[in-house]
Formats: sequence, structure tokens, C-alpha cells
Amino acid sequence: MTGPLDLRGDFPILARKVNGKPLCYMDSASSAQKPRAVLDAVMSAYAEDYSNVHRGLHHLSAVMTERYESVRGIVADFLNAEEDEVVFTSGATEGINLVASSWAAPRLGPGDEILLSAAEHHANIVPWHFLRERQGVVLKWVDFEPDGTLNPQAVIDAIGPKTRLVAVTQMSNVLGVEVDLAAICAGAQARGVPVLVDGAQGAVHAPVDVQAIGCDFYALAGHKLYGPSGSGALWVRRARVAEMQPYRGGGDMIREVTRDAVTYAAPPLRFEAGTPAIVAQIGLGAALRYLDGIGLARIRAHERDLVAHARAELAKVPGIELFGMAPGKGPLFSFRLERAGSPQRLAALLDQEGIAVRAGSFCSQPLMASLGAKALCRASLGLYTTRADIDRLCAALCAL
Amino acid sequence: MTGPLDLRGDFPILARKVNGKPLCYMDSASSAQKPRAVLDAVMSAYAEDYSNVHRGLHHLSAVMTERYESVRGIVADFLNAEEDEVVFTSGATEGINLVASSWAAPRLGPGDEILLSAAEHHANIVPWHFLRERQGVVLKWVDFEPDGTLNPQAVIDAIGPKTRLVAVTQMSNVLGVEVDLAAICAGAQARGVPVLVDGAQGAVHAPVDVQAIGCDFYALAGHKLYGPSGSGALWVRRARVAEMQPYRGGGDMIREVTRDAVTYAAPPLRFEAGTPAIVAQIGLGAALRYLDGIGLARIRAHERDLVAHARAELAKVPGIELFGMAPGKGPLFSFRLERAGSPQRLAALLDQEGIAVRAGSFCSQPLMASLGAKALCRASLGLYTTRADIDRLCAALCAL
Repeated sequence: MTGPLDLRGDFPILARKVNGKPLCYMDSASSAQKPRAVLDAVMSAYAEDYSNVHRGLHHLSAVMTERYESVRGIVADFLNAEEDEVVFTSGATEGINLVASSWAAPRLGPGDEILLSAAEHHANIVPWHFLRERQGVVLKWVDFEPDGTLNPQAVIDAIGPKTRLVAVTQMSNVLGVEVDLAAICAGAQARGVPVLVDGAQGAVHAPVDVQAIGCDFYALAGHKLYGPSGSGALWVRRARVAEMQPYRGGGDMIREVTRDAVTYAAPPLRFEAGTPAIVAQIGLGAALRYLDGIGLARIRAHERDLVAHARAELAKVPGIELFGMAPGKGPLFSFRLERAGSPQRLAALLDQEGIAVRAGSFCSQPLMASLGAKALCRASLGLYTTRADIDRLCAALCAL
Repeated sequence: MTGPLDLRGDFPILARKVNGKPLCYMDSASSAQKPRAVLDAVMSAYAEDYSNVHRGLHHLSAVMTERYESVRGIVADFLNAEEDEVVFTSGATEGINLVASSWAAPRLGPGDEILLSAAEHHANIVPWHFLRERQGVVLKWVDFEPDGTLNPQAVIDAIGPKTRLVAVTQMSNVLGVEVDLAAICAGAQARGVPVLVDGAQGAVHAPVDVQAIGCDFYALAGHKLYGPSGSGALWVRRARVAEMQPYRGGGDMIREVTRDAVTYAAPPLRFEAGTPAIVAQIGLGAALRYLDGIGLARIRAHERDLVAHARAELAKVPGIELFGMAPGKGPLFSFRLERAGSPQRLAALLDQEGIAVRAGSFCSQPLMASLGAKALCRASLGLYTTRADIDRLCAALCAL
């Protein structure tokens, strides 16, 4: 029995075998597979219309500029934002680094504090460690509950007079539980502190509305959203845009350059130097259109069904230890199974069955330290996952 | 009559028409078209093998890591360098910004000088203006000769006791004349000053040997080298690598992260945070293999033939004013034709004939100011260009 959606046929790679078994891809939180619609958009961009953007007067340049720039509107719609608040990036990591470099670095000094959750991905930790190392910024941490939830009030209570930014994930890539961002942002806003949201995981599993969330910065990763690797976007609230210095220097982000001076283009181009990842962003646009075509509500219902099924079936695996099982769980499950040996060995055994899971510390070492685990196994699902995939995983785990 | 090579058939897009005429693509210096080998590599990466890299223990992750990391060796061979000196970037702009941010920013202070040629692209100007604006670095300029050559001795003579870096193009994207980098680097090295080379244009038209050049940093753009947009690499001499601080923070570039501290991975991963543009870099590898398969010497001979033919034929166009016509000319031609109106109008008229050229200031405003031109037209050729294409361009110009 499958869930209400079976989209495997839209994803060419899912027809392949691994180790003689049909591929059961459960590493989507690391990077998602791409639907044919994305491959077609990439291919047609290169084989039919390719040119640089923003720069030419010839036909192909106009076509590609239109295809590329239209993605800004698609991303804006996806986030419920304005087009000119959308900065294209190579992914969530670059988005967060952009905020660290263009907004935080010029305004934070020794003793200024950045408040982080203990479940952040290194992408939302290391850019702030740079500011600690280089300019004396202090990092403060809020712990997660043992079940994987983040108490919004605990975050708000940790905001002090020196807090200059709250940087928090929408969904930990290890625990998988949705964070109540609206509550956090309301509390932070009341204290005049901007909030950056790492949406790399969260944007994949729930509709995003940056107005309803009330954050100031929202970073997403195209490659987790069924788009190409190297695609992504950062949304910046208009009031914050005005506070940011340029990020990288080069073509397209300037108004005028002389030997002695430079003036800059209006945002968002101000933050996008050089020839961009034109075709990757066009692919991201195709991915978001694909999701919209299926319907985000249907995808969410499907994923909720998968989560419920996986919760029930994983719980039956003898000896399994599951992490982050609070309500509001997204479709990713971190676990240990002691009798199978290390999580790395477990992943290798599952790979023999054609089941791709990840094992390690998931670029989340501070969280892993607080969980008391050096490594875990993680099965992360996508919209192409079916109940049958989950049954295969659970059967393989039971057979170990 | 065509030159010795006719590779149009390898480039799917060249079969299309523009405005009812077969596409004559002469905007390759802005971004080159992609051969089928690149499209196939991109497609097979997504449709057959896709996964994130460096992070998984499952089969696809191992396959993709191997495909992705093998490109480092291909780039190293292309540059005559060592693999671990090759940092993947999104293009030349990011490469130069990486040097500005990771090498120059932490070590240059007020009054320290960076020496630039007057023909640099904004990608090799604006990152240094950032250092001028933010930390008082002084920019010094060396003029080009009227024929488009850069006198190496003029560069060397301009190096003073406060010069900390020479940043120079291998080939101006407006003038198109090869710069004698080896002479500049020898002089700079004798004075203990590192040299950064912007290879965005130069790498496309001549074999690159960073050892023979003797530079310290070499930035290339994959999308100009027949690879995907969003691909690229920066070569850093080993002695300079050790002087660089990390660039962006995130996954993959760390050794260990705790709440209070961070240690970093060994180079080159230290400079590559987050999920990279995996498939774009695989496409760059395919592009470089494609070039190698044809033979860089054959490509160079073909382009020299094209340049000789274009020189002769363009000179016959009544009223044309050509820029940068010194010996050592690469296959790009900037010109004005007053009777056709503005360069923008000229480009639009050529577009009606299916001929794609660029018009504007080419992200090189300081050079354009010294040429006394607000805008020019530029026809830039690729390895797929034929003598027949040049004849079409010249016939169209003559007919105006």
C-alpha cells in the first residue's frame, strides 16, 4: 500500500538499481533527487537558449535574462515575499555567510552576542564563529528539549541586552522537528533583535511565509528543494537590506566604477557579483513550479502520512533508538541500532540492500555532543518516498 | 572555406535559428556555449548518479564524490598544478573575492598598495575597492599601451615599497591581447610581491602553466571555458595557501566544531563551505576533457587562423574603428561603426541577422574611460567559430 502520492516516475534516477536492488533513496535531507521537469529546464537552457544574462542586447541574452529573472518572482511567491528582497545564492550556506559578512560583520563588535540554538547545522554556526574569532562577538546557546523540540520561550528568555541577532533553524537536520519560529520572532521583535532563519530543511517540508514567521533573513538551499546543486536564495526584509554592505565585488553589482571610486547597484543585484549560476537558478525555478503543480498542501499531507507510517513501523524495529520524536516531526529519522554496530556500518549494510541512508554527525557536532552521540544513522524522506520504501527500510533493519 | 576545425556539430545550440537566421554566436567572451559532452555529463550526474558528496557511505554518494573530486585533478592538469592547490569556486569573480577576503583583507592595512592594470574587469577591481573603502588600502594603476598591450616593465617599475599585491588580467575582455605574465611575475617575485592573475579570458585561448607563469593566485571561470555557469576554480600557490584564513563557514570545511571553538579542515576543503555546485563542477571536468580530447594546440591553431582571418576581413569594413589590435591578439574584437549609430543599436541590427554580439562597457569601466568610449561592440569567438561566421559578421557590417 502506498500513500496518496506516488511520484517516483517523475524522478529518472529512481528507476536505477544499487547493488542489484531498486534504489531506495533515503538521503534527501542531504540532497534531494531532481524531477524530470528540472532536468528538462536545465537541458533546454543549455541546448536551446544559453547566454549570459543582464549584459547583452542580442536575442539569447534577452531570453536567458527573462528565464533567469523570472525565478526571482517564483522564489518570492514561494516565500510570500517581494521579488527585490530575494538574493540569489549558491545555497543556504552562502545565504547565511552573506548575512554574516554583509550585515553582521560591519555592525557587531566585542561583547555583542549572537543567540543560536544548540541544534544548528555548521552552516549556521561557523559563520558566527568567524565573528567570534575575528571581532570578539560572543556566541550564546539555547538547548533543545530531549524530544527534539525547541521551547520558544527559552529562546526569548535568553535574549539579553547585548543580543544583536538570533540565528535559528526551521528544522534541525538531525532531530527533524519543526521549530515555532513565529513565537520566537515575535519575542525577538519585541526586544528589537533581528532573527535569521536557516530554512535549508524546513522549506522542504512546510509552506513558508516569511511574513507570518516574522523573521528578518531566511536562507534556503535549492538542492534540497529538488533543484540543482549550486542554486539557492536568501530573503532579506527590506529594512535589513538597507543596512547591508555589498558582499562580493565584481560585474553586475555596481553602478559605476572608476579608478578612485565605486558606487553600487540597487539590491538585490548589489549582492550578486559576476556571472551567476544562471542555469542552476533556472532549474530551481522549475523545481518550485513542479512543487506548486503538485500542490504544497498535498505534498505536506503525503509527508505526514509517511511520517505517521514511519513512526509506527520504526518503533517495531527491535532495539532501535530513535531521536527527536516529538510532535511536529518532519520526514527525517535519526537512529541507532546497537546490534548492527556503528552507524557507519549500519549505513553500509543498508546500502547492500539498495537503501541509501546517511551516517555521521550531520554537520551538527554541537548537537551531537549534547545528544551524547558521535554518530547516528539518518533516513530522510522526500516527496517521492512511498510507504513501500519505509517498509523496505524497516524490514532491512529487522533482518540485521 | 572554414578553418581546420569545424566543431559546430558538437554544440547543440548552434543548430538553432535566431530571427529566422542560423545562430552566429559571437558572445563567447561573455559566456561560451556548451558541447554535448558537458550536457551529457550534467544529465548523467542528475539522472543516474546524483547524491551529495563527501558525506555519505552509500553507493551514490561514493560515486558522486569520485566524479566530483576527479575534477580537481583535471583542473590541476589543465593548470600544471597540484590537486590540493585547486579550490573550487563559482567562477573567476568568486576566486578573486576569495583571495581578497581570505588572503588580502587580514594582512593589508592603511597605505598598503595593490597594483592593478587599467584594463581589469570589475571582478578584479571591485574586491580591491572594498579593501580601499573598508581598510584604507590604496589602489595604483598601470596604463595599457594604445594598441592594447601591457608593458611588463611598466608594471614592474610601478611596484613600490608599499605594494603588497599585483592583480592583473591574462587577457583583457575588451582589448583581447595576451599579457606577458611571466615577465611581470618574475619582476614582482624579485621584489617579494605576490601576483594574482585573472584568467577568466586568458585560460580559454592559450595553454595555462601556472609554474611557467610564476604567479601566486590564478582564477578561472568554468562558464567561459565551455563548462556550466556556476563552475570555476582558483589555484593558490602552496606558500600562499598557508597564509589564508577560511573564506565561508559551514559544512565540509571544518575539522571540529564545538560551542566555544572551531578548527578547520586542511586545504582545499577549508575554503569550500557547504554543499558545492557538484554537478556544475562535474560539467567543468567534462568541458576540460573535451578540450583535451581535441587538443589545446589544435584549438590554438584554429583560433589563430580565425584571428588572422578576422583581422583581414574586419579591416575591410568601411569606417570601422578597431581596438586592441597589437600582436598576441586573442579571438575577441571590440569596435565602433559610427554610421550604424550607438554600439547598442549596432548589436541590435546584427541580432536581426542572427549574429549575437555584445555592446556596452563590458564590466571594464576604467578601461573604457581611458579609451574615451562609453560603449563598444564586441565580437568574441569560440572554438566552434568558423571563417564562415566571420564572413557573415563582416558582410552584415558592410551592409549597414
